[in-house]
Amino acid sequence: MYTLYYAPGSANLLVHLALLEIGAPHTLERVDLDAGQQRSAAYLTLNPNGVVPTLVIDGVPHGEAAALAMLLAERHAEAALAPATGSAQRADYLQWMLYLANSLQPLFRQWFYPGDHLPGAADSIKEAARIGIEKCWSHIDAQLAAHGPYMLGDTFGMVDLYALMLMRWSRNMPRPATAWPQLAALAARLKARPSWKRVCEAEGLVEWA
Amino acid sequence: MYTLYYAPGSANLLVHLALLEIGAPHTLERVDLDAGQQRSAAYLTLNPNGVVPTLVIDGVPHGEAAALAMLLAERHAEAALAPATGSAQRADYLQWMLYLANSLQPLFRQWFYPGDHLPGAADSIKEAARIGIEKCWSHIDAQLAAHGPYMLGDTFGMVDLYALMLMRWSRNMPRPATAWPQLAALAARLKARPSWKRVCEAEGLVEWA
Ligand SMILES: N[C@@H](CCC(=O)N[C@@H](CS)C(=O)NCC(=O)O)C(=O)O
Ligand SMILES: N[C@@H](CCC(=O)N[C@@H](CS)C(=O)NCC(=O)O)C(=O)O
Repeated sequence: MYTLYYAPGSANLLVHLALLEIGAPHTLERVDLDAGQQRSAAYLTLNPNGVVPTLVIDGVPHGEAAALAMLLAERHAEAALAPATGSAQRADYLQWMLYLANSLQPLFRQWFYPGDHLPGAADSIKEAARIGIEKCWSHIDAQLAAHGPYMLGDTFGMVDLYALMLMRWSRNMPRPATAWPQLAALAARLKARPSWKRVCEAEGLVEWA
Repeated sequence: MYTLYYAPGSANLLVHLALLEIGAPHTLERVDLDAGQQRSAAYLTLNPNGVVPTLVIDGVPHGEAAALAMLLAERHAEAALAPATGSAQRADYLQWMLYLANSLQPLFRQWFYPGDHLPGAADSIKEAARIGIEKCWSHIDAQLAAHGPYMLGDTFGMVDLYALMLMRWSRNMPRPATAWPQLAALAARLKARPSWKRVCEAEGLVEWA
């Protein structure tokens, strides 16, 4: 049994989409980020970094959105959200999951929390993040143009859900992900899946829904 | 058969250490970063991001240091560098690999390449990265104090190799990782392994060796 601690549209979105695609029973616990609930003593025992998501699995809390997505893909291999261990596509899967986790998601953290480490530098950190994010979109768009329509080619999977969450995060940026044609096509394709409608309802997402 | 494209001490260090711990036959190809070889047409066909490492596996090039480490752990399960799929420790393994990949390594990229996206903001980006890196060391040091001596407890593994590479990257920072007592103990323990001596010889590392 799974319990997902979430805030609407936050990094939990990937994990939530994965649970819905898998069809795994789960309960949701909302964390009020505006009220600072992520830094409450109770929540910090679940997630010492004070961030969402946390996924409680059989009573044990775990963190890191991309790690949870990879774990769910392993625990529910029958849902085929990731190429099997030992398969030819496994390296591509890991490479793209880690590209998004290592090169793109951290820049969004800086875009949304530019003053986290050095408040006086918030403006330039935000601007550098914007430039970096746009470089990543160009890189991913080129991948899709060459090897799409999904992130790993013909087959939908976890990397697409991760890309979808990150694309949504860019919706109010000067140049949102959907300004790139292949990314726009991918977003449209993914938003047509039942999991998207359900996640928007469950998290109460109305923008870019 | 593996071929690792590397630059001394760069993100390849994790992959190289993993190959040595596994005892997997491999050849090394040096990439001259100072000469810009990573941006040559030939190298970009192997690694479209123009970075090291690239690991060529049975003729196919793959990138992303942490992804390659995870892939090697899967391909050589007998080396026990990662908890097995389905084991109780698997979530912890994924969580810590992704914490390092998502929260810590990207800050080093900004520390070493602060002007990459916005040259005028290099100084503040570097300073923000330093503060962020130090927060991560405190977090990891606390984890080791509570659940050490290795990153996942009693057993050495891939997360330790990843932490070791990142600790080495901090050696010339105002407050290197080894200023934290548990991290210093972990570094000493890991540097006593034969793989460390061999990687330093093979990559020609003399500082912090
Ligand atoms: N590395 C973490 C980062 C998670 C993260 O930054 N979550 C944000 C929301 S998207 C958060 O909880 N922010 C609240 C805060 O930092 O106070 C992960 O991937 O799970
Ligand atoms: N996300 C990549 C990042 C690799 C990376 O940034 N490598 C650096 C050396 S540590 C590099 O190749 N720098 C040369 C350059 O960017 O021109 C990975 O983890 O493999």
